[in-house]
Amino acid sequence: MSHRVLTGITTTGTLHLGNYVGAIRPAIEASRAPGVESFFFMADFHALIKCDDPDRIAHSSRSIAATWLAAGLDPARVVFYRQSDIPEIPELTWLLTCVTAKGQMNRAHAYKAAVDAAVAAGEEPDAHVSMGLFSYPVLMAADILMFNAHKVPVGKDQVQHIEMARDVAQRFNHLYGRGQELFVLPEAVVDAEMELLPGLDGRKMSKSYDNVIPLFEGGAQALKDAVARIVTDSKLPGEPKDPDGQTLVTLYDAFATPEQRASFRAALHAGLAWGEAKQQLVALIDSHIGPMRARYEALMANPAELEAILQAGAARARALAGPALQRLREAVGLRAYTSTATTVAAKAEKAALPVFKQYRETDGKFYFKLLSADGELLLQSQGFEQGRDAGQWVARLKREGAAALTADAPVQRAGTEADITAALAAFQEA
Amino acid sequence: MSHRVLTGITTTGTLHLGNYVGAIRPAIEASRAPGVESFFFMADFHALIKCDDPDRIAHSSRSIAATWLAAGLDPARVVFYRQSDIPEIPELTWLLTCVTAKGQMNRAHAYKAAVDAAVAAGEEPDAHVSMGLFSYPVLMAADILMFNAHKVPVGKDQVQHIEMARDVAQRFNHLYGRGQELFVLPEAVVDAEMELLPGLDGRKMSKSYDNVIPLFEGGAQALKDAVARIVTDSKLPGEPKDPDGQTLVTLYDAFATPEQRASFRAALHAGLAWGEAKQQLVALIDSHIGPMRARYEALMANPAELEAILQAGAARARALAGPALQRLREAVGLRAYTSTATTVAAKAEKAALPVFKQYRETDGKFYFKLLSADGELLLQSQGFEQGRDAGQWVARLKREGAAALTADAPVQRAGTEADITAALAAFQEA
Repeated sequence: MSHRVLTGITTTGTLHLGNYVGAIRPAIEASRAPGVESFFFMADFHALIKCDDPDRIAHSSRSIAATWLAAGLDPARVVFYRQSDIPEIPELTWLLTCVTAKGQMNRAHAYKAAVDAAVAAGEEPDAHVSMGLFSYPVLMAADILMFNAHKVPVGKDQVQHIEMARDVAQRFNHLYGRGQELFVLPEAVVDAEMELLPGLDGRKMSKSYDNVIPLFEGGAQALKDAVARIVTDSKLPGEPKDPDGQTLVTLYDAFATPEQRASFRAALHAGLAWGEAKQQLVALIDSHIGPMRARYEALMANPAELEAILQAGAARARALAGPALQRLREAVGLRAYTSTATTVAAKAEKAALPVFKQYRETDGKFYFKLLSADGELLLQSQGFEQGRDAGQWVARLKREGAAALTADAPVQRAGTEADITAALAAFQEA
Repeated sequence: MSHRVLTGITTTGTLHLGNYVGAIRPAIEASRAPGVESFFFMADFHALIKCDDPDRIAHSSRSIAATWLAAGLDPARVVFYRQSDIPEIPELTWLLTCVTAKGQMNRAHAYKAAVDAAVAAGEEPDAHVSMGLFSYPVLMAADILMFNAHKVPVGKDQVQHIEMARDVAQRFNHLYGRGQELFVLPEAVVDAEMELLPGLDGRKMSKSYDNVIPLFEGGAQALKDAVARIVTDSKLPGEPKDPDGQTLVTLYDAFATPEQRASFRAALHAGLAWGEAKQQLVALIDSHIGPMRARYEALMANPAELEAILQAGAARARALAGPALQRLREAVGLRAYTSTATTVAAKAEKAALPVFKQYRETDGKFYFKLLSADGELLLQSQGFEQGRDAGQWVARLKREGAAALTADAPVQRAGTEADITAALAAFQEA
């Protein structure tokens, strides 16, 4: 089996040039490596946690899907789908929810950050925490485990979530695997070299700093306007300029060949005006982004085509998710009544296990009895003043088996010696 | 529209006579009332919270489905389905998860009881809490809201969960309803007269007391054996007996006509032996239960028939759940890219909202500008030494609109007077 890599894409905004250089471009490159089976999905169930504006959710999903395709993601080569088109994912989420310890979610960074912020503001710890925010790592585990992804490329802040997905997978395998591995244990891949593009002011490009260069929005004019706002030093045209540490040069490098980089630096040293340098930067970026922008605009203008691509991706994803979920449902016991797994296993288990029952009679005393799996009485105790004494005898009989049945043992035999010995032996084996 | 009543049936064990008299019989009677549309479901997703034994889950679901049908539930009249056959339910669970406050779950009785028990035992509060136990009220809300049930018959311990479902429904309606009610607000119906059948020892019949009379399990013989164990007083045959407070009489009453009750009491007063009275009790119960037991055994022997009944129920349930979920998905923004809701609403919103941007220039001063929704510059401020001053001017312009644009206002007009006035008016309306 090839190596599966899964990438989720949140859908609450539109993308900027920093997203392209830091995330989209390297992910698409990685998806072309041989022996890799890539899954890319629009994480729109996750988007609902952060955003309750339906139009923004809808528009963002559409715009981001078009962006990835325009940037070169090949939907024939990778499995490209909307999370919300895969009903198997929320169903798996519930199965995983039942094996996830709440204590583990208490330790999630995103949750703890929200609690810390509320406490610092003098509010209740959970004042701004929705169950969506709290349960988010379980949904993320379902995203990953649904397709048995081996690797999940993430930022450092997401490594903990992948570890949680591993833990949940391990627990599920342990509880329900019956010796076979139901889930692959996923691994986080943190790209240490992930390129962080600076924004107009030299800080990390981010919407929260209002320093972004748009990727496609607003067309070539918006790109030109943004580049015009890049902060430079105040050297005049003709003055030699030091390219080191200049935001403009870092942005240029992100799109340039080694030759282009060298000649751009040489020109700056030779006195190239900042205005002229900005024009060269716009031309360079647009030589890469321009053709993508045209594809983006074509996809946005043709929602039916975009929708068809996502539907085809959903069909491929569900062809994997459907049978996988069916196996998991069988494993936890959600089975058709005609399933042979039910009858065979239930009968086998029933036949194997005798039972001790402890109870108190109307005389106020405590008793126990041993019943065969068929409900036949095998041993009947005398009455004990203390429930604890009855419990200790039950424990001893389970531990020591028929050897504990000495002449002074406080029980009467009701079944055959063979049946009693066999029933007690079953506890020792269990 | 008729009145919808929803009843969930947990599937982690088998049923006893107390379940029949206290829950099954009255629920089936209520389902026959005119104007009532009843939904009965096997809550097998819930069962996973309590039980990680797959065979027990599978067997219990099958046995309990057969029990309800054998007891007279008419699958043509009611919608009778397995929860896990309705993938719309876990999906709705996620939508509701995103609008549920974690603080509300912190207050759920079942969760608090688990925490109290752990703390009392000197353990971590969440030591034994799974996310399934913690999130359970959200799944229950989805069960109810999926079908817009008006009434949910529950025990007192479940009333809080129905109130939580109401709260979640209200919040969802408020966030996403856009004036229309997406969810009916459900009401709990607590049956004050719910018959609590005593067990063999006179306490409430319960598996944890080991005092149950089986409903169908073990056949007529098991019924007879259990009745033989009912505790009575020690009056001899022929001695007059006081029927009041006798467990045996209470059990008799649960199945008897008024005439039968009177004659049974008279016979006891006249000295009827307890042994004889037990035989009469067995005969009475078996006259009701016997034919049901035969149907139960036939259904258990024919899993294909049972499965077909549940599949037909699932098809009816999904015919309602599918379109309902589709409406809800549209409402939160999970839409096909071809959806007209997307484009129309997103454009309308975009056109409606101009934006103020605040930023700091390289001169160290603070600026703001007003952009139209199309990104056109309308107002450009002068530089402020303090960011606060820029912020206060933005607030004043939003509040007072064009009236704040006096001659000494620290802004330059970049757009037409009409565009500026309209943009500022949009903030006042918002």
